[in-house]
Amino acid sequence: MTDLNPITTVRILTTGGTIEKSYSEEEGTLKNRASIIREGLISSLRLPYTHLELESVVNKDSLDMDDKDRALIAEAVERTSQQGDPIVILHGTDTMADTAEFCFKKMGTPPVPVVFTGAMKPMGFIDSDARQNVTEALLAARLLQPGFYIAFHNRVFAVPGVRKNRDEGTFEAVG
Amino acid sequence: MTDLNPITTVRILTTGGTIEKSYSEEEGTLKNRASIIREGLISSLRLPYTHLELESVVNKDSLDMDDKDRALIAEAVERTSQQGDPIVILHGTDTMADTAEFCFKKMGTPPVPVVFTGAMKPMGFIDSDARQNVTEALLAARLLQPGFYIAFHNRVFAVPGVRKNRDEGTFEAVG
Amino acid sequence: MTDLNPITTVRILTTGGTIEKSYSEEEGTLKNRASIIREGLISSLRLPYTHLELESVVNKDSLDMDDKDRALIAEAVERTSQQGDPIVILHGTDTMADTAEFCFKKMGTPPVPVVFTGAMKPMGFIDSDARQNVTEALLAARLLQPGFYIAFHNRVFAVPGVRKNRDEGTFEAVG
Amino acid sequence: MTDLNPITTVRILTTGGTIEKSYSEEEGTLKNRASIIREGLISSLRLPYTHLELESVVNKDSLDMDDKDRALIAEAVERTSQQGDPIVILHGTDTMADTAEFCFKKMGTPPVPVVFTGAMKPMGFIDSDARQNVTEALLAARLLQPGFYIAFHNRVFAVPGVRKNRDEGTFEAVG
Repeated sequence: MTDLNPITTVRILTTGGTIEKSYSEEEGTLKNRASIIREGLISSLRLPYTHLELESVVNKDSLDMDDKDRALIAEAVERTSQQGDPIVILHGTDTMADTAEFCFKKMGTPPVPVVFTGAMKPMGFIDSDARQNVTEALLAARLLQPGFYIAFHNRVFAVPGVRKNRDEGTFEAVG
Repeated sequence: MTDLNPITTVRILTTGGTIEKSYSEEEGTLKNRASIIREGLISSLRLPYTHLELESVVNKDSLDMDDKDRALIAEAVERTSQQGDPIVILHGTDTMADTAEFCFKKMGTPPVPVVFTGAMKPMGFIDSDARQNVTEALLAARLLQPGFYIAFHNRVFAVPGVRKNRDEGTFEAVG
Repeated sequence: MTDLNPITTVRILTTGGTIEKSYSEEEGTLKNRASIIREGLISSLRLPYTHLELESVVNKDSLDMDDKDRALIAEAVERTSQQGDPIVILHGTDTMADTAEFCFKKMGTPPVPVVFTGAMKPMGFIDSDARQNVTEALLAARLLQPGFYIAFHNRVFAVPGVRKNRDEGTFEAVG
Repeated sequence: MTDLNPITTVRILTTGGTIEKSYSEEEGTLKNRASIIREGLISSLRLPYTHLELESVVNKDSLDMDDKDRALIAEAVERTSQQGDPIVILHGTDTMADTAEFCFKKMGTPPVPVVFTGAMKPMGFIDSDARQNVTEALLAARLLQPGFYIAFHNRVFAVPGVRKNRDEGTFEAVG
C-alpha cells in the first residue's frame, strides 16, 4: 500500500541574484543575503506536503558570474540530483538562461526536474514577483519530467530555448 | 512557423467561497464579492503570456451549495470547455471536492484541464493563501493533461480521490 | 542631569472591536482575539523609546457593549492612570465615542492623556487602517495634555465633542 | 460659527533620501524617485480631513547634500511657510538633523510647525518604517506649536538638539 500523502523533498540551490537581495539599513544599499530566502519567502508559503532543503552554492549578482561559478553550480546540480529529489535553483535573471544552458551542455538531461527561477524585484518589496515565481517553480518541480527548465511569470520554458527579454522584464522562448 | 511566445487564454469561473470574501466596513462582516478577484489578486500577478477571462457562475459560501448550484457549475464547465482553453475554478474549500466530483461524474474527462482552487483565508488578508493557490492553479492549468484537478498548497490532486482535511486546513488524497 | 532619551511607558487597554478581529480558518468567520494586537501590530512598529504594557479589559464587538462593560473600562482607566503613564484604548468604532464620554462623565479630566482608537477594517487586512490609527494614538498619547481623546485618520478629537460618521467611515467633531 | 470639521492643508516638501528610493528593475538598483511618495505612501493612508500639497525641492541621497542644497531647502521652507499651513519635509536620515539645524539657524522659529521625517528602509519594502514615520509627522504637524522638529519612530525631537544614532538606526536627543 502506498502512502497517498507523502512528503516530497525539494532541494533548493541558491546562487544569489536579485531575488535574494535584501536592504542594508547601515549602508543604504541592496546586498545578496541567502538567509532571507527561508525567513522571508518560504515561511510565507503553505507547504504541508513539501520538505525543503536549502543549500547556498554561490552568492552573486548573476552579471558577475563566470564559467567557474557556473561549473560550481553544475557540480552542485550533479551531486544533488543523485538524491532523486526535484531541484529548484534561485538565480539572477540576467544570466539565468546561460547557467541553465551551461548545465544542460554538461549534463544533458538530468535524472530529476531542475527548475531555475528568480525575480525582477527583490523579495522584500511589496510588489516583488519573487513569491509568485518560487511558487511556480516549486509546483513545476513536482509536475515536470526530468530536464532543465526556467519557470517565470506563469510560464515554464524548456532549456535550451529560452532567453531574458530585458525590455519586457521577463523571459521568452527562442526558436 | 509557430509563435514561440503565444498568449494563452485561461478561463476563470468564480463560484464564491472564502477566497472571494471581502470585508464590508459598513456591516463589519465578510461577504462574497466576485469583483475583488480581478482587482485584488490577478492584478498582483505578472502574467505576460496569459490572458484571463473571468465569469461569475454562482457566488456562495460552498457550505450553502446544493446540487442545483453544482449543476450550474457543471454546465458552465461544459459550455466553457468547448472553447478549448484551460479552466480554473475558484470555489469554497468545504465542498470543493464534492463539486469537482459532481462535474467528473457528469462529464467524465473534460476536453481541457479544469483546475479547482480556493483559499483557507480570504485574499484581502496579509497572510492569505489565495495568491499562492491561484498562482499554482494557473500554472497547473497550463501544464496538466485534460482532466479535473484540485491545486492547493503546492500539490495537485486528481479528481476523484481528494478531500478536505479540516484539521490540517488543507486537502489530502484518498485511496 | 536628565536622561535625554528616556523610555516612555504607554499602557494599552484592549476592549475588542474590529481592530482586534482575526479570521478563524476553522469557522470561516472573524472573531475578537486580543492576542493579535501584540503579534500583528505592535511588532510591526519601530518603538525604540516606548515600552508598551498591554491589558485586556473586555473583548467585545462594541455594538454589544452595555454600561456594565463601560463601567469596567472606566475602572480600568482610573486604576491604570494612577501609574502616571499615557493610556491608549483600543475599542470598536461604533460606540467608541459613547465609552469615551462615559469615562469623561465619571472621571472628568484624567491625570494622564487617554487616547481611544480603533479601525474600520481589522488589522489582518492588507488595507487595514489599524496600523495608521495605532501609530497616531501612540504619538498623540505622548504629545497631548491630560484628557480624553479619540485619534483617528490623522486627526485628534477632544472628548466630549466627537461622534462616528457612519457614511464616511470615520469620526467627526460635533458642536 | 466655525467649521467643526475643516480640511487642513499640509505641505510636503520632498528632498530625496532613502524614503523615496524605489527599485529600478532595468538597472537592479535603488534610485530616488519623488513620484512614489504619492502613489505608494499617501494613497495608503486614510486622510479624510487632510489635503496634501507635494513639492519636490531637491532629490538626493542626503549624504550627497551640501550647503547649497540646504539653502534651497531653507528657501523653500521660508516661502512655503508664508501660506500658513504646517509643513512636513521628507529627507534622508544621514544629514536630516544637519538640514533641520541649518533651517533653524537661518530662520529661527518659523511661523508654522515644520516636521522633518524619513525612513531607515525605502517605502517599497514590506517592513519599511516609511509609513509609520510619515503618519507620525503628519499628525505632529497638526498638533505641535510652530518650530522645527524631527518626528521618527514614535518620538518628536525639537531642533536643535537631535542627531542620528547610526548604531541603533534611529534618532536621539543630545544635550
